[in-house]
Amino acid sequence: MASRVGILGASGYTALELIKILLRHPHVEITAMTSRQDPQHVSQVHPELAGRLDQDLELFELELLCERVDVVFSCLPHAASAEAVSQLVDEGVAVIDLSADYRLTDVGVYEHWYRVEHPDPNRIGEVPYGLPELYREQIRGASLVANPGCYPTSAILALVPLIEAGLVNSEGIVIDSKSGVSGAGRTPKLATIYPECNESISAYAVGAHRHGPEINQQLSLAANGPVEVVFTPHLVPMNRGILTTAYADVAGEFSQQDLVDALRDFYHEEPFVQVVDELPATRHVSGTNYCHLTARRAAGKAVVVSCLDNLIKGAAGAAVQNMNLMLGVAETTALLDGLAT
Amino acid sequence: MASRVGILGASGYTALELIKILLRHPHVEITAMTSRQDPQHVSQVHPELAGRLDQDLELFELELLCERVDVVFSCLPHAASAEAVSQLVDEGVAVIDLSADYRLTDVGVYEHWYRVEHPDPNRIGEVPYGLPELYREQIRGASLVANPGCYPTSAILALVPLIEAGLVNSEGIVIDSKSGVSGAGRTPKLATIYPECNESISAYAVGAHRHGPEINQQLSLAANGPVEVVFTPHLVPMNRGILTTAYADVAGEFSQQDLVDALRDFYHEEPFVQVVDELPATRHVSGTNYCHLTARRAAGKAVVVSCLDNLIKGAAGAAVQNMNLMLGVAETTALLDGLAT
Amino acid sequence: MASRVGILGASGYTALELIKILLRHPHVEITAMTSRQDPQHVSQVHPELAGRLDQDLELFELELLCERVDVVFSCLPHAASAEAVSQLVDEGVAVIDLSADYRLTDVGVYEHWYRVEHPDPNRIGEVPYGLPELYREQIRGASLVANPGCYPTSAILALVPLIEAGLVNSEGIVIDSKSGVSGAGRTPKLATIYPECNESISAYAVGAHRHGPEINQQLSLAANGPVEVVFTPHLVPMNRGILTTAYADVAGEFSQQDLVDALRDFYHEEPFVQVVDELPATRHVSGTNYCHLTARRAAGKAVVVSCLDNLIKGAAGAAVQNMNLMLGVAETTALLDGLAT
Amino acid sequence: MASRVGILGASGYTALELIKILLRHPHVEITAMTSRQDPQHVSQVHPELAGRLDQDLELFELELLCERVDVVFSCLPHAASAEAVSQLVDEGVAVIDLSADYRLTDVGVYEHWYRVEHPDPNRIGEVPYGLPELYREQIRGASLVANPGCYPTSAILALVPLIEAGLVNSEGIVIDSKSGVSGAGRTPKLATIYPECNESISAYAVGAHRHGPEINQQLSLAANGPVEVVFTPHLVPMNRGILTTAYADVAGEFSQQDLVDALRDFYHEEPFVQVVDELPATRHVSGTNYCHLTARRAAGKAVVVSCLDNLIKGAAGAAVQNMNLMLGVAETTALLDGLAT
Repeated sequence: MASRVGILGASGYTALELIKILLRHPHVEITAMTSRQDPQHVSQVHPELAGRLDQDLELFELELLCERVDVVFSCLPHAASAEAVSQLVDEGVAVIDLSADYRLTDVGVYEHWYRVEHPDPNRIGEVPYGLPELYREQIRGASLVANPGCYPTSAILALVPLIEAGLVNSEGIVIDSKSGVSGAGRTPKLATIYPECNESISAYAVGAHRHGPEINQQLSLAANGPVEVVFTPHLVPMNRGILTTAYADVAGEFSQQDLVDALRDFYHEEPFVQVVDELPATRHVSGTNYCHLTARRAAGKAVVVSCLDNLIKGAAGAAVQNMNLMLGVAETTALLDGLAT
Repeated sequence: MASRVGILGASGYTALELIKILLRHPHVEITAMTSRQDPQHVSQVHPELAGRLDQDLELFELELLCERVDVVFSCLPHAASAEAVSQLVDEGVAVIDLSADYRLTDVGVYEHWYRVEHPDPNRIGEVPYGLPELYREQIRGASLVANPGCYPTSAILALVPLIEAGLVNSEGIVIDSKSGVSGAGRTPKLATIYPECNESISAYAVGAHRHGPEINQQLSLAANGPVEVVFTPHLVPMNRGILTTAYADVAGEFSQQDLVDALRDFYHEEPFVQVVDELPATRHVSGTNYCHLTARRAAGKAVVVSCLDNLIKGAAGAAVQNMNLMLGVAETTALLDGLAT
Repeated sequence: MASRVGILGASGYTALELIKILLRHPHVEITAMTSRQDPQHVSQVHPELAGRLDQDLELFELELLCERVDVVFSCLPHAASAEAVSQLVDEGVAVIDLSADYRLTDVGVYEHWYRVEHPDPNRIGEVPYGLPELYREQIRGASLVANPGCYPTSAILALVPLIEAGLVNSEGIVIDSKSGVSGAGRTPKLATIYPECNESISAYAVGAHRHGPEINQQLSLAANGPVEVVFTPHLVPMNRGILTTAYADVAGEFSQQDLVDALRDFYHEEPFVQVVDELPATRHVSGTNYCHLTARRAAGKAVVVSCLDNLIKGAAGAAVQNMNLMLGVAETTALLDGLAT
Repeated sequence: MASRVGILGASGYTALELIKILLRHPHVEITAMTSRQDPQHVSQVHPELAGRLDQDLELFELELLCERVDVVFSCLPHAASAEAVSQLVDEGVAVIDLSADYRLTDVGVYEHWYRVEHPDPNRIGEVPYGLPELYREQIRGASLVANPGCYPTSAILALVPLIEAGLVNSEGIVIDSKSGVSGAGRTPKLATIYPECNESISAYAVGAHRHGPEINQQLSLAANGPVEVVFTPHLVPMNRGILTTAYADVAGEFSQQDLVDALRDFYHEEPFVQVVDELPATRHVSGTNYCHLTARRAAGKAVVVSCLDNLIKGAAGAAVQNMNLMLGVAETTALLDGLAT
């Protein structure tokens, strides 16, 4: 019998990708979608879905929702998400939280970076970080999973294998990431209207982006010690995709081949991470749950280039991958060889 | 048992979309791919397929190919296509020809517009035009189908219902179409390098595009009399998508609602044509096999706006839709609710 | 002595282009700029101007302004513009109004299309339409000029020569225009955020755009009788540029060469209108005050393709051209052979 | 009397920008343009110039050229450039060489990276590097100037002030640059056709780009010792612009303000370098000869973000700036407050 799935905050770009993937999923059925606006048909919000899903977006009501769903994806903003999620988990609903609320394991760090009081501080630190390539076993059977940020996924997949293998130093790491504009969400603001983004590239929040502490946390675990990277996100004139160029000092005489081999060893059984020979481009993974990456050695540094679709492997696809693990179905269901579009 | 599928001319954009759709298809298996270059792994030509398809592109050899395939998609250029296709059909292979070679029913018209001698003139005129919305029954069980051009699909789907219902005059029709650059193919040329296309729109081949006679042929059949449209294609700075704005004089006192109703009546059972209320945008159908369309009435004219993905509903998706009909499997297999990406 | 220039509504895209042109103008000096927000330095609003203009945007105050300017460009929204403009003209300030307030000569038509009461109905109809190619003499020495809409400029320049020469019928004209997103202004809204526009093209306001009556008015004057066109604007994923494809029935046996010759005759002394042989592209005129256009003949119709930069020849450049005429300096000053960027 | 100017290799993007700037220049006249193709009118090669420049592109002939020009800009490819340039300089023509041929001061380094024998090895090392912000006095009166590469200009302007002031270490520098596609030239190739670049970002030539040694050479001079950076260029889906994000370890307790102050001190009299407060975007300088830059401090590193238009400050604009110095006219002539477009 199909699991009944709900989506909170269903009017954004991530939710649209989620819906399209779930429509292809043989073991689930979308039974509820919420938004903070007046109820309206999903195809009014997402014209892409005309004739494909006949359902309304409704206001959130806890009790009604709990009766209608087994699993929930939360695409709500941070803080609002933990508020809803904590109630759902209490009611026995399995949740994949796509917000940042359960990613950081330290309430203080969370409250410093997100400038709000955490609505559910007790659970923080006990929720698996939803990167199956690192935490597959913890995710299986979990009732709540913290879906990773899009930038962190690209950076962590690039660097953890080399740090764990001792091929690079964990000091002085530079992470230079480039993202398409969909990562900035669907709420209109000056910075993301077309003429402000098109024919331009810019850096933003240098050393001050909220994904920085998330990256530091995971790399510190890999390094068994505190890691503090410089993380610079950039806005690129394209809809989708993140390319991360990560720089770390090679820890000795290791060659470029050693770096690539370490990546291959780490990922050789992973269905969604491809270590490639040629330098990858975001269009190679656009619309898919794949991450392509490779390494180069230059001037004593390892340069790892990784790319993924920020809305899929960086959000909705990873969320379904997590759901599959939580539900005990094949991890790649609805994600392999093409996605909902 | 899965049908064995071959793809001729597998290095272009249409072939890539075809491969991605076929990888999701439960009833077929890709067993051969050809290109005119030296054999190389498909992921060297299409890095998108790294880890997804482990096969080489090889040179075309008729006998070897016939042993390995039941169905072939030809993505070869015109003339070269008919040359290969005619041999394959003679050998009993089912073929979907994505070139223009079998679309026009008059050899003279073909040779005038394409400036070559037709390599297989006897078959011309007996091959079903592969637009299932108009020719479903002829396609079922055919051994060779002429897959329509991308512009013609958008124009014919927009106008045939209104012409057949007598709501518009078939004289003086204007078809103003706008296409993404992938429609120009993957062979490098000055006109399609990035800085020549980006931040620019232009018309080309006004009244002189080869898709013009194809449109005229189908609209003439709908009108039961000769139709000659003005067809103006435009190049738009985007990868994918065609939007066609078609103008025809309303044949009497019909209202806008009459126009929309006629479209709805015509398409209400079609899985891939959605008559929408709001004006559609190409991004609503990008990556899918859907065509969205609607009509407006202004200054005595019907204005029908249709859009589709030129590589999917305008090429690879339609081709698989045709294959499904030819093989007798469900027409929507591998095409509904998301496509290979 | 330099004329002192003020700009009302200086925070938008048109105003930025205006400023950049005026900075190159040897006979004027920018002495005042207004916006409805708290005073701030122009380079905070337009980072492009860092180090190039050291001045604040201030709130509008009639008396202060009148003391500081000789000429004003109004980039205010309609209605708000006429309210300010009427006061300035009363005080003897020369004004180029870039809003729609004085373009239509019939108050009723204005109030029907713009859904507001006109704040200055007495002046309407007596203000020259600021298209120098048609109304040069009226503009010279005028104290108030109505700067044309961007779409109308592209359509009127394309069709008036052929209508006036009797080469085309004025009935059944179709105007299919394609515009970059800067034409939608700088105020954030869902329809113009990057991911909604990029990789997509759409039609909007089919037969219902406010530039329709403006086009009809000018073509009616050329035809000496009422003209009602079908006007369809489209949104194209680029910042700047309008391409208009205009279709009209050829009025007899005229050839394509006759059409092109008529355009050349009409414009041979115009500094900013180039009749070209090859089909033009918007990038050829981007950032300039030029309009490129040419004609084709197909299926009994004249197809005129014109293009211009919507922010320059479609707005700020035309406005400076008008100012030059009003001030009695060379019409091409600061506009020829390159513009402020 | 105007200086007579020739342009070698006038069919590319840099040459077009050069022509547009020179058309605005009061002290020069374009008297010769060459290309390797059959003679044709400049407006056939550059439709942007219709009606603006009535001249042909011709084949290169040394004697004829020398009679007609005082100054030459060479936009030829490397090696071909030095071959022509050396002859022109011998004949007393002043030359600005936009190729890489005279930038590196070591013939061995040149021949290693460019894989050709240098056609004019004796002059190498004696030609001023045409970055006026560093070498203004050497450029004044020189008969040959080596115009810098686009990436190097963005990297050198970002880092030299901090290195010279001792605020950062010169070891372990990372230069992560992002360029629009016009930087790849106008010759069609698969990597730069529209659908391969659009909606995608990629790194290329990691640690292996020819601009690397050029950057190292200039930073070594600033550091008074050998510097070897990691330089990673990226291809961004836009026509124009380079954004460079440069990372260097802060050499002590210097604050972010110290870094910004050092930049301001260095550039406070420079007409074309603006040290800004907010993080810059390439669109702020697109079409201009300006470089915008600023610094941040994060995790012990200085992060300098600089941007410029690769075709202007990164090529044609810098070349005219050099010409102005060589001719003894005001350095900013034709370059300030707007450029040819």
